[in-house]
Amino acid sequence: MNGFSLMIHGGAGVGSDPSKYAPSLRLIIEAGARLLERGASALDAVTHCVVLLEDNPLFNAGRGSVLNVDGEVRLDASIMEGRRLRAGAVAGVRGVKNPVLLACAVMEKSRHVFLIGDGAEGFGREHGLAFAEDAYFLTEARLMELEKAKEQRRAAPDAWKDQSGGFGTVGAVARDRLGNLAAATSTGGVSDQARGRVGDSPVIGAGTYADNASCAVSCTGVGEHFLRTALARTAALFVEYHGMGAVAAAQAAKQLLIEKVQGLGGLIIVDRNGECAYAHSTPGMRVAWARNGDIRVEAT
Amino acid sequence: MNGFSLMIHGGAGVGSDPSKYAPSLRLIIEAGARLLERGASALDAVTHCVVLLEDNPLFNAGRGSVLNVDGEVRLDASIMEGRRLRAGAVAGVRGVKNPVLLACAVMEKSRHVFLIGDGAEGFGREHGLAFAEDAYFLTEARLMELEKAKEQRRAAPDAWKDQSGGFGTVGAVARDRLGNLAAATSTGGVSDQARGRVGDSPVIGAGTYADNASCAVSCTGVGEHFLRTALARTAALFVEYHGMGAVAAAQAAKQLLIEKVQGLGGLIIVDRNGECAYAHSTPGMRVAWARNGDIRVEAT
Repeated sequence: MNGFSLMIHGGAGVGSDPSKYAPSLRLIIEAGARLLERGASALDAVTHCVVLLEDNPLFNAGRGSVLNVDGEVRLDASIMEGRRLRAGAVAGVRGVKNPVLLACAVMEKSRHVFLIGDGAEGFGREHGLAFAEDAYFLTEARLMELEKAKEQRRAAPDAWKDQSGGFGTVGAVARDRLGNLAAATSTGGVSDQARGRVGDSPVIGAGTYADNASCAVSCTGVGEHFLRTALARTAALFVEYHGMGAVAAAQAAKQLLIEKVQGLGGLIIVDRNGECAYAHSTPGMRVAWARNGDIRVEAT
Repeated sequence: MNGFSLMIHGGAGVGSDPSKYAPSLRLIIEAGARLLERGASALDAVTHCVVLLEDNPLFNAGRGSVLNVDGEVRLDASIMEGRRLRAGAVAGVRGVKNPVLLACAVMEKSRHVFLIGDGAEGFGREHGLAFAEDAYFLTEARLMELEKAKEQRRAAPDAWKDQSGGFGTVGAVARDRLGNLAAATSTGGVSDQARGRVGDSPVIGAGTYADNASCAVSCTGVGEHFLRTALARTAALFVEYHGMGAVAAAQAAKQLLIEKVQGLGGLIIVDRNGECAYAHSTPGMRVAWARNGDIRVEAT
């Protein structure tokens, strides 16, 4: 089988106007599909799609990321390829234009898998990654969202509010013509998060996983719920050992998320056979996929 | 069944003199066993054991941690309890006397699971955790180790050397009389690690996992290998879905670690029935366990 499969997501939750995401998702899935069509690797395709999602201020990653409690942007990303299980991840970085490219550089050029904070930024400078001023990342919409989130927290400190853009984490998963899998995830976290807070997006096994023996997974939602269930790895094990395809594994992972931690969020999966699936416990999710010539966009 | 089980580890690898660890491991396992004997929770027992391991300069956690490439100590820890799958983790913190207590505070007192860097330190100060000067953490042995590690890297940049104390990460897993499970892990990382490098120890699902439905797990070894396999979560899923006990799951996880990433390290498991086991791909591992009245120490 020498076809290809690609899925992207722009977060789960309830968007104020989901239809506004559909045109961007379509352009990005088409760009990724063209790459795979021409024989690009799954790793290159997911990297390219996540860069485009990071650059688009609609989504909560790279430019347009949400703001933490101090009104600052701190970025997290991870990437993994399924042939040799190589992985790279960064958390709490500032000013890195495309965190997914930094995660990729960590995977390909460092002795390590996971770098955080100024150590990760310094590594990015050494390897020539693009940086941008704080103003590049900041949008009016996110400033307003932060104020709203702070008000909500004052009203109900323990409740996780279903912020309109707060679960807008982005991700991509792919299977290329050679059967290699890859997954990548990138986020600005959640509005009003504590200084130094990290969710699941940069955590291999929680927000991102890929193994040619099973599938590629990217998650989005309340990061704490996905950390506590290591959901991406869980879904991959369902495929590898329980004989599930992407559809069954996505549903089983969603059920586990709900049953174990009453979790909020969703995941996308492309399995070793190229089957595409997504599942979410939130009311909606913004996804698009391409399987060979067939392209679909669903933003709910 | 109202018995209790407790296991601790002081790392895997080859110690220059493994027997020097045995007396400390015995004192610490006895202290933890006394707590469980008197009805303490698994969470309290693993916390207490890891505090004692952190305070002991022999082990690579808290006082006596290894030094990064800049000659600085940066600490990582995580903790998880199996009844409600609550978890807390910190990475890249400086000056926190007992990182496991900070991870526990994150679990019990924050909205989040994972805090890093100065955000985690600030949270610790707000919650009254003890801090210490850099000199408290530093030992002559680790300074010499760093010099040796730098020499080795110059000689063979890509080889992970089996440093005498470099895999000395500590951890504890327990099942209390009520059947509740808990796991905790703490480390200074590896000698000569890059600034900002994080291994598996603070990563829920990689270095630490606990679920009353399966088992409690703590890992040690080359953190990158455990991140890429999300090994703690993998072992827990083997228990939950494949009908394995601790012994079978530890062996299966070790095999997966070797087959998937030629991984170096080991893990300890206490399962839902109180069965204790450990397995390692390194030549030796330093462990101790207590199952009701029976106490054993094995430092190889």
